[in-house]
Amino acid sequence: MAVYTEVSDTEIIAFVAQYDIGAVVSFKGIAEGVENSNYLLLTEREPYILTLYEKRVSADELPFFLGLMEHLAARGVPCPTPIHGRDGEAQRVLCGRPAAIISFLKGVWPRRIQPEHCTQLGAALAGLHLAGVDFDPRRRNALSTGGWRPLVEACRERADSVSPGLGATLDDELALLESDWPGDLPAGVIHADLFPDNVFFEGLRLTGLIDFYFACNDFFAYDIAVCMNAWCFERSGEFNVTKAHQLLSSYRRVRPFSDDELEALPLLARGAALRFLLTRLYDWLNRVDGALVKPKDPLEYLGKLRFHQGVSGPAAYGLT
Amino acid sequence: MAVYTEVSDTEIIAFVAQYDIGAVVSFKGIAEGVENSNYLLLTEREPYILTLYEKRVSADELPFFLGLMEHLAARGVPCPTPIHGRDGEAQRVLCGRPAAIISFLKGVWPRRIQPEHCTQLGAALAGLHLAGVDFDPRRRNALSTGGWRPLVEACRERADSVSPGLGATLDDELALLESDWPGDLPAGVIHADLFPDNVFFEGLRLTGLIDFYFACNDFFAYDIAVCMNAWCFERSGEFNVTKAHQLLSSYRRVRPFSDDELEALPLLARGAALRFLLTRLYDWLNRVDGALVKPKDPLEYLGKLRFHQGVSGPAAYGLT
Repeated sequence: MAVYTEVSDTEIIAFVAQYDIGAVVSFKGIAEGVENSNYLLLTEREPYILTLYEKRVSADELPFFLGLMEHLAARGVPCPTPIHGRDGEAQRVLCGRPAAIISFLKGVWPRRIQPEHCTQLGAALAGLHLAGVDFDPRRRNALSTGGWRPLVEACRERADSVSPGLGATLDDELALLESDWPGDLPAGVIHADLFPDNVFFEGLRLTGLIDFYFACNDFFAYDIAVCMNAWCFERSGEFNVTKAHQLLSSYRRVRPFSDDELEALPLLARGAALRFLLTRLYDWLNRVDGALVKPKDPLEYLGKLRFHQGVSGPAAYGLT
Repeated sequence: MAVYTEVSDTEIIAFVAQYDIGAVVSFKGIAEGVENSNYLLLTEREPYILTLYEKRVSADELPFFLGLMEHLAARGVPCPTPIHGRDGEAQRVLCGRPAAIISFLKGVWPRRIQPEHCTQLGAALAGLHLAGVDFDPRRRNALSTGGWRPLVEACRERADSVSPGLGATLDDELALLESDWPGDLPAGVIHADLFPDNVFFEGLRLTGLIDFYFACNDFFAYDIAVCMNAWCFERSGEFNVTKAHQLLSSYRRVRPFSDDELEALPLLARGAALRFLLTRLYDWLNRVDGALVKPKDPLEYLGKLRFHQGVSGPAAYGLT
């Protein structure tokens, strides 16, 4: 939760005057989002989100993200769409940061996941994958296999201080994934970070997918694996096969899996677990006292990795 | 900026169901307020603020604050008013904290103060003082003279580490204020913390006064002194006599000063400066690494105290 850049009243009023969305009625920093500064902006017309992109999202990459949201929203994906100013531009600069106003989505994110949430998520994820097929710009996944070795190297020396034996686990897992990672699977634009706090519901009806700032081109099934890890484990660490079944079977009603995808799922789930284990471990080892955001527990993802290491096939995820 | 208590989707939905305000459409923690957890709640009808009261505001004291807001709002003061549930109650418990839904106020708080802001503020403050005259419950000001000595004692030993000579300054100032503090001046309910981030404007029109959780019974002129310190100094530390003149002359058009109040103003301004110097110094010396809220600079208020120490009468504030 964070607002890194404080925007003044005069700055926001001048900024909003570049759009045809009515005058500013209220403007409050919101305690959500780890990477960017987000404000809930109420105008005479309706609510909007103003995002100032902090260091991780560069002005160069923003056209990919904003273009993708606009593309998906136009195809019925319930995601925010960038608002264009009177000059036609959606991307501007505010307080020295790249900035954009995007549409506001109703709903709240679920803290306690029910199987029905996973059903809705599966269909929405498949819909997102299909809607992105004709999106031309490409962005490589900087946090896929090629990005893991540098993170292992940066964390290796102190890994055992977090959990004894973690360093060796990272070495072994990385070696296996680098060797066995699939070369070719159905691919396209993926969200790559579709955790519960990025998915809004009204009741049990999915109303929104947000935060596309890790979106990239990669295997569709890797995106499913990310979701399975984020949605189908209980807080106690146990895997909930009912939720996984709901997620996967709902997904494949919209976009059927190939045999290769099915077979690769346990390995992709290990990769998806390692990816979040590594970034969390890095943030944990490099946490700054006084930082606005509390680092997340890396060991949650070590447990998930271990679960998938013990899986022999997609039947473990409730698929037949 | 902080949200100390995270409320889940199911908790907020069940909580809001106790009110006749429509169903929850959105619910976001807002990065404002230092002491409590604040959420912007959108329902099918309109925006509201949900506040969870953290340790400083007790359930025992909340009826005073909520009752005061309701009293003032009913008399035309532009302040939030508590929303009552179907059972008639405005104060409840959520996530183990006292909690209330209050009405939402339009406007944004001014980061760069213009003299016209001070004009509007003066009239609104006088209006607040008059509207509170028939509010019966009383709450003593725990941060007036009687509350300063314990703070000086808690900070005395390390004060010089923040600014050489600060310890002696605190001793001398406290002795003088304890000896010369007025015994009797026009008094009633005061806001006691009316800083710019607690006052909303649309353009230069004042639309809201918020955050009544320091409100108490004390001298009206002490509240004016708090505002003068918070609104009439430039960031460079210079006192802006134009702003003070606007604040004070606008105030007294609504509620005229007595001669005693006028004469006491420089001393009250020293007391108001010492009060924020002491609480900031205490927070500074006792800051916790990793805290969500960055402590404010106590020395800003040392500069303000020094200014008022050099003032011989209210003419220094632009009054004749």
